[in-house]
Order: sequence, then C-alpha cells, then structure tokens
Amino acid sequence: MPVLIVGSIALDTVKTPAEEHADLLGGSASYAAVSASFFGPTQLVGIVGDDFPKAHVEYFAQRGIDLAGLQQVPGQSFRWSGEYMLDMNTRETRSVALNVFEHFTPHLPESFRQTPHVLLANIAPALQSHVLDQMTRPRFVVADTMDLWITIAREDLLKLLRRVDLLILNDSEARLLTDEPNLIKAAALIRALGPRFVAIKKGEHGCLLFGDPATGEFFACPAFPLANLHDPTGAGDCFAGGFIGHLAQKDAADGNHAAPVGFDALRQAVVFGSVLASFNVEAFSLERLRSVTEKDVQKRFEEFRRFSQF
Amino acid sequence: MPVLIVGSIALDTVKTPAEEHADLLGGSASYAAVSASFFGPTQLVGIVGDDFPKAHVEYFAQRGIDLAGLQQVPGQSFRWSGEYMLDMNTRETRSVALNVFEHFTPHLPESFRQTPHVLLANIAPALQSHVLDQMTRPRFVVADTMDLWITIAREDLLKLLRRVDLLILNDSEARLLTDEPNLIKAAALIRALGPRFVAIKKGEHGCLLFGDPATGEFFACPAFPLANLHDPTGAGDCFAGGFIGHLAQKDAADGNHAAPVGFDALRQAVVFGSVLASFNVEAFSLERLRSVTEKDVQKRFEEFRRFSQF
Repeated sequence: MPVLIVGSIALDTVKTPAEEHADLLGGSASYAAVSASFFGPTQLVGIVGDDFPKAHVEYFAQRGIDLAGLQQVPGQSFRWSGEYMLDMNTRETRSVALNVFEHFTPHLPESFRQTPHVLLANIAPALQSHVLDQMTRPRFVVADTMDLWITIAREDLLKLLRRVDLLILNDSEARLLTDEPNLIKAAALIRALGPRFVAIKKGEHGCLLFGDPATGEFFACPAFPLANLHDPTGAGDCFAGGFIGHLAQKDAADGNHAAPVGFDALRQAVVFGSVLASFNVEAFSLERLRSVTEKDVQKRFEEFRRFSQF
Repeated sequence: MPVLIVGSIALDTVKTPAEEHADLLGGSASYAAVSASFFGPTQLVGIVGDDFPKAHVEYFAQRGIDLAGLQQVPGQSFRWSGEYMLDMNTRETRSVALNVFEHFTPHLPESFRQTPHVLLANIAPALQSHVLDQMTRPRFVVADTMDLWITIAREDLLKLLRRVDLLILNDSEARLLTDEPNLIKAAALIRALGPRFVAIKKGEHGCLLFGDPATGEFFACPAFPLANLHDPTGAGDCFAGGFIGHLAQKDAADGNHAAPVGFDALRQAVVFGSVLASFNVEAFSLERLRSVTEKDVQKRFEEFRRFSQF
C-alpha cells in the first residue's frame, strides 16, 4: 500500500564543528519520502522553486517516489541554514528564507486522495489539516510537528490533533505542548487531545511509544549506538518516514484492514524509523541513504533486536 | 553464592519540591545491600555511630543481611542532606557531615574474604582498593564511583580500575572521566583503563552496558516508565545492588565457574538492577523496598521485557 508524505523540500546549508556544506537536499518531506521509499510506493507532495537542482528530482524519481504532487514554480526554493554546537545536540538556526514555500498550499492529485497511510511531515498545522480535508478516510494518519507551531499556531495544532492517529514530537516539544515535565504524564495529556498514539523522540536516548496504558501499550526503543555522528539534520524526518513506510508495508502484508492498526505493528515501525534515522546521521543531507540497501536496513533492525533484548 | 557489599551507611535529610524528611536510612551500602538481598545472601561492610537507630540495623538483619562487617563506633553517623529541584533530576547537596565515616577503614571479617561477587559501592577509591587487598581472587568485582572521586582522587581511581571487572557510573561521570562527550567512545576509553565491562546509567533514559565491541557486546536497557518519582536518592545504589545480587544468583544457578561471567548474564543483571532502582524511587529512603516482594521484582522484570521487545 502506498504512503502519502506532505512536507517541506529545502536547500540546506549545514555547519557542524567539523564541516560545512551548502545547498544540500533537505526539508522534512525529502528526508521522510526517501526513508519511506525503502519499504514501498511513496507519494510526495511539496513545492520547489525553479532553482531546484534537477539531480534532486531525479534522485526522488530513482527511489520510485511518485512526484505527481511536486509543484515546481517560479522563484527560489525554501532555504534553511543551521549550525550544530560541539555536543552535536544543540542546533542554532542561522537563517530561514521561505521563498516559494511561503505561499505553499498542498494540493493532492486525484490519485493521492485515497492513500491509506499518511505522514503529515513538519509544516504548519493548518496546511497539515488542509491535506486531510482533501482525503477520503485514510487508515492511519501520522503528524510530525515542531516547537515553532506549538508556540505560534497552537489552536491550529489542537484542531489537527483531533484528526490524527499518532503524533510524533521530541521530548522538549512534548513538554512545551503540555507544560508537563514528566514524559509519561505528558504523553497521557497528548493522547487526551486526540491521537491514540504518541511517539516521543529523545535523540541519543531513543524513542518512547505510548498507546492505551490500560492495555499496557508502551514501548521503549533505544537509539542505535553511534560513535560518529556527522549531521543530525533530518533524523526526525527519516524516523517519521521509516515509521510510516514500514507500517504501510506491514499493514499490506497482514491483510486484515477491518481491524485497527495494532500496537505490535507500531513497535516494529518505531524500530525501522530508528534504523533509517541512525543511517541518515552518518553523513550530511541524504548522502548516507544513497548507498544503504534494503538488506542493510533489515540487518540493522536485527542489530536493534540483539542489543535491546535480554 | 553470597555477595559482598562495601560502602557508606548514612542518615539522610532529603527535600523534594513536594516533601522533606530527616534522618532517613541512606548511604550507598544500605541501598545496595537491601537491593541485593532480594536475590540471595548479602554481606555488608560499613560503619555507623552510636546514634544509629537500632531499627535500621534490625531492618538489615530482617532482610537476612550478614552484619559481621558492620562497625558501630562512638560518635555520630555519617549525615548527608540534599535537595531536588523541580525537574527531580538536578540535586544540590545542602550539607555533608562525615563524622565516624571520616576515619572508616573497611575491615573484612574472615568469613567475607572469599566471597565471589563483590560490589564496591560508592566510597573513596583508595578504600575500595583496600577491600580488594583483603580478598582472595573474587570471581567478579563491580565498582561504583562518583564525580567527586574522578575529580579529587583520579590516581586512586585509575589504580582501582585495573582490578575491577565492571565499572558503574552515570553519563556525566563517564564524560568527566574520559573528557569524551560521545558515550560509545567514552565507554571504549574506560574499558582501556581496565574494566572489561562498563555500565553507564542515564537516569530516566535507562542504562547502556558495554563489553567487547568485537563480539557485539552492547546492551541498551530502557528505564521503567514512572509517572511519579518521589525521591531519586539511592537509585544508582539500588541499581548496583540489584545488579550484583542477581548476577550472583544466576552464576550460582549456572554452575560453570570455570568459564568467565558471560554478557547475557550481565544483560539480565542490568534489568534486575533497573527493576530495584525503579521501585526505590517510588518513595523516600528505602521505604518502597520494605513492601516489595520477590514476586513483585519478577513481575516488573517481565514488564521490562514486554515494553522493550518488538
């Protein structure tokens, strides 16, 4: 079953203590769509300017990504520049130029409107809702968000949350959204806002997945042990893309679409999301994923199993 | 097989944002010995003053702890006072009065000198070494330490590390000891100092266990999800005590003492250590462990399995 991914497509300039690279392929939808494409057919909705390198579009196509929803319009592409501090955890945004992204309205081609698995990657929550307005009852909707929207578009975000199955956010965002420092309590508060499931990302400490506590729906996934982290940009987007990609693949294999998506499928999707994220941070932009194979993904999934079981 | 635990025994005054309690049973050896006693015979070496409440000694005895190494001398017991900030992660020491602990020299009764499993709980590394000087080739030695000793007694600590099998420390201590922010690299540097195994505790993010990377000896253990944390004091000591206690029990059950302790036994010991720590933080001092049963411990171990497997 295909997945639909809507989000930003950007040209990034990234500086780490060791290196700096300009005009890299970036954006939440780019990372997520490439990651999802490891598992099956992926549909991308986003916008780029007429300066957007053909090579990047070709890379998407080569990954089998359906580009019927990619708008290319006159003007400059969305540009983002950021710098990582010595610990590689703290990031400062140096500049943002929205350019063509400023007036982006996601428009879904007819062929995308019944796609069962949807990832609303990180863009303004009003746009995320607008995507759902165009769809016919998707089976499972995942939304990602960020601190900016929690702060400046909280009402839009709250409206969106009533319509999504799973919210992905990081630990500081969960605390910001709920004003609750304890993540177990924060997850319960978020579930009360709408999503049946919440995935809280903790960077080098892994990810927590919360469902109904009454039936013991809780999963703690460690992070892959990495001695060398080259560029954390896009890790969260790759997580989201790997997550929805694997979920759709598993759901297709399971075949029972009368039953709601179960917690066990979500656990495995969290691990596959973590696998994709762990590869991605090994190089700048999407460079590492260019050489990763489906076999590599499966192998690292088994490594996760080895180091988290007892 | 019995375990030997040497460390501090204290009377603590602890303040959290919600509560304050004075003259609580505390100290690294108290927490560790009570935790270890859930798994089998436990020998305690420590010192208290003549003000030490009889009820605390009786509690140790009631847990079956061998008190032949407990020195009671004229003077005041070691006293510590600390305060937790709102996030319950940051702690400020308000006062320390070493009292009789200042001139403590651990002296092992003859009956403790051949004990196979040893936990050198958090005390000065020179004292930890002095314990090993009195022993006949223990099978497995675990040492705990803290930032203070890394800073003021580094040479003593380095000498000790050549003689221990496993070092337990938290993430900030690992970084302080090695001057390396990445924990994977920090663990490798610590292993090069002597211990074949390193357990790095990360509080609410769980624990990482490192052995030989060439044979894939790595284990990531999540923390138990707790919505309410009442007093984090002693969590690390309970972890260490539960760890060594379970290891000794498992080792006795396995029976093959020609072979070195294997990584799978250590994985399970990390989980049991985490189980004991997770109970302990649910109340002040050792109050929670008073009502915990061996069945509760086993049940929570199974819960760890449920929420960390996929």
